[in-house]
Amino acid sequence: MEEMIHEIKSWIYEAGEVIKKSFQADDLVVDTKSGRTDLVTNLDKATQDFLTERIMNFDPNAKILGEENGKDHLEDFSGRVFIIDPIDGTMNFVLEHENFCIMVAVYEEGVGKLGFVYDVMKDEFLWGGRNIGVYCNDKKINPPKDIALSEGLVGLNHVMYQKDSWHVQKMGEVALGVRMTGCAGYELISLAMGRRAAYISRLAPWDYAAGGVLIEELGLRMSNINGEPLKLAGRELFVAATPKAYENIMEIKN
Amino acid sequence: MEEMIHEIKSWIYEAGEVIKKSFQADDLVVDTKSGRTDLVTNLDKATQDFLTERIMNFDPNAKILGEENGKDHLEDFSGRVFIIDPIDGTMNFVLEHENFCIMVAVYEEGVGKLGFVYDVMKDEFLWGGRNIGVYCNDKKINPPKDIALSEGLVGLNHVMYQKDSWHVQKMGEVALGVRMTGCAGYELISLAMGRRAAYISRLAPWDYAAGGVLIEELGLRMSNINGEPLKLAGRELFVAATPKAYENIMEIKN
Repeated sequence: MEEMIHEIKSWIYEAGEVIKKSFQADDLVVDTKSGRTDLVTNLDKATQDFLTERIMNFDPNAKILGEENGKDHLEDFSGRVFIIDPIDGTMNFVLEHENFCIMVAVYEEGVGKLGFVYDVMKDEFLWGGRNIGVYCNDKKINPPKDIALSEGLVGLNHVMYQKDSWHVQKMGEVALGVRMTGCAGYELISLAMGRRAAYISRLAPWDYAAGGVLIEELGLRMSNINGEPLKLAGRELFVAATPKAYENIMEIKN
Repeated sequence: MEEMIHEIKSWIYEAGEVIKKSFQADDLVVDTKSGRTDLVTNLDKATQDFLTERIMNFDPNAKILGEENGKDHLEDFSGRVFIIDPIDGTMNFVLEHENFCIMVAVYEEGVGKLGFVYDVMKDEFLWGGRNIGVYCNDKKINPPKDIALSEGLVGLNHVMYQKDSWHVQKMGEVALGVRMTGCAGYELISLAMGRRAAYISRLAPWDYAAGGVLIEELGLRMSNINGEPLKLAGRELFVAATPKAYENIMEIKN
């Protein structure tokens, strides 16, 4: 396990360096996918290809589920599966040049074992896994305080907030403030570090797989909005929170 | 002018060091002001006192307008006025330990001359002034591209967004995304650096004075929501944007 952790970290750091250099080269090619706010760049694709190649060299039997390059669907989670988001927060990557993450999760027989979430520009790397704890860069972190929703910030999706889906506006009022950052990795790092009481959004598996492993290892709660386990398939309404804030959200959403 | 710039920067860096050390000491005293989401800490007050003392040593005739300690009202803007927000984004300071700014503006005869906005934890210091340009740390920055609202992100206030005041929800739909960060300084740095098309919120003078000087020097637009000059008195609905995005906003808001 230690060797695998070391390997995965080195791939992610290497990919991060390439991405940072791309800001100087200024040769980014930006395309849209499902609509004008759903962006993909040549760097998203190249980063996923790079990670895929490293994974296949490391474990030729592994399967891959990833946001780009037609790898976005997987039926069979038997054996070892790597779930990749090469650039989480592509809009921020393109427009802000910050607040985006590289994310990799390792699942075995359908169970999340390892998670890696790297905020590239902030150089904040959260990683860890089931029964091994969670680290920020090289330092093991403690589970965050179990604050109620009323004692912390909540990260929300702007479309859900606008439409008041599941009474998220009420959740925002109960919380001490609403934050929208456009990056699931940023939000899940924030939750793990105790900077949020909760995060609610509409997410695909590669958005929450890596952060989810870390969140659960820290004793935080995660599910779909109905309180059911996430399916690792398609987009779902995603809730992650401290245990107390999770209960608050489940009461308000009805 | 150069001496004054050097002085002010050194005060702000010194205040930033004290604030950073406070995270280790863990002796923060948090109070509320107008309501449970309007926080003030002993550090807000101490930082404003520290800046006030330095200002008074430097220019005993200067006036001060600042968020804390009963300095939040000023009628007479003749002579030299320092406008201070010791910790802009106090909620973030308390809950995130990041995404807060120290801000100082220098006005002379009612005209903004110098602005200083320091994102302490990111160590991103934007400063400059009328006819002297804008610097990020030690590097002079170019004016950002004049993008339309549809080509960039918009920073919004969550209460305005929830209530759809002035059709800000429509503005969010036209933009490529909505961001809520809880820190005016963070938003105005983002705008100056080309990471936003626009920022709209309900702000007090100390929230926009320093950033406003920088925004205008870079050729960006700033006014209240009615298109009138900001009054440096009380809270106003504040708009800052690229020239194109400003026109887009003024069309949508009616």
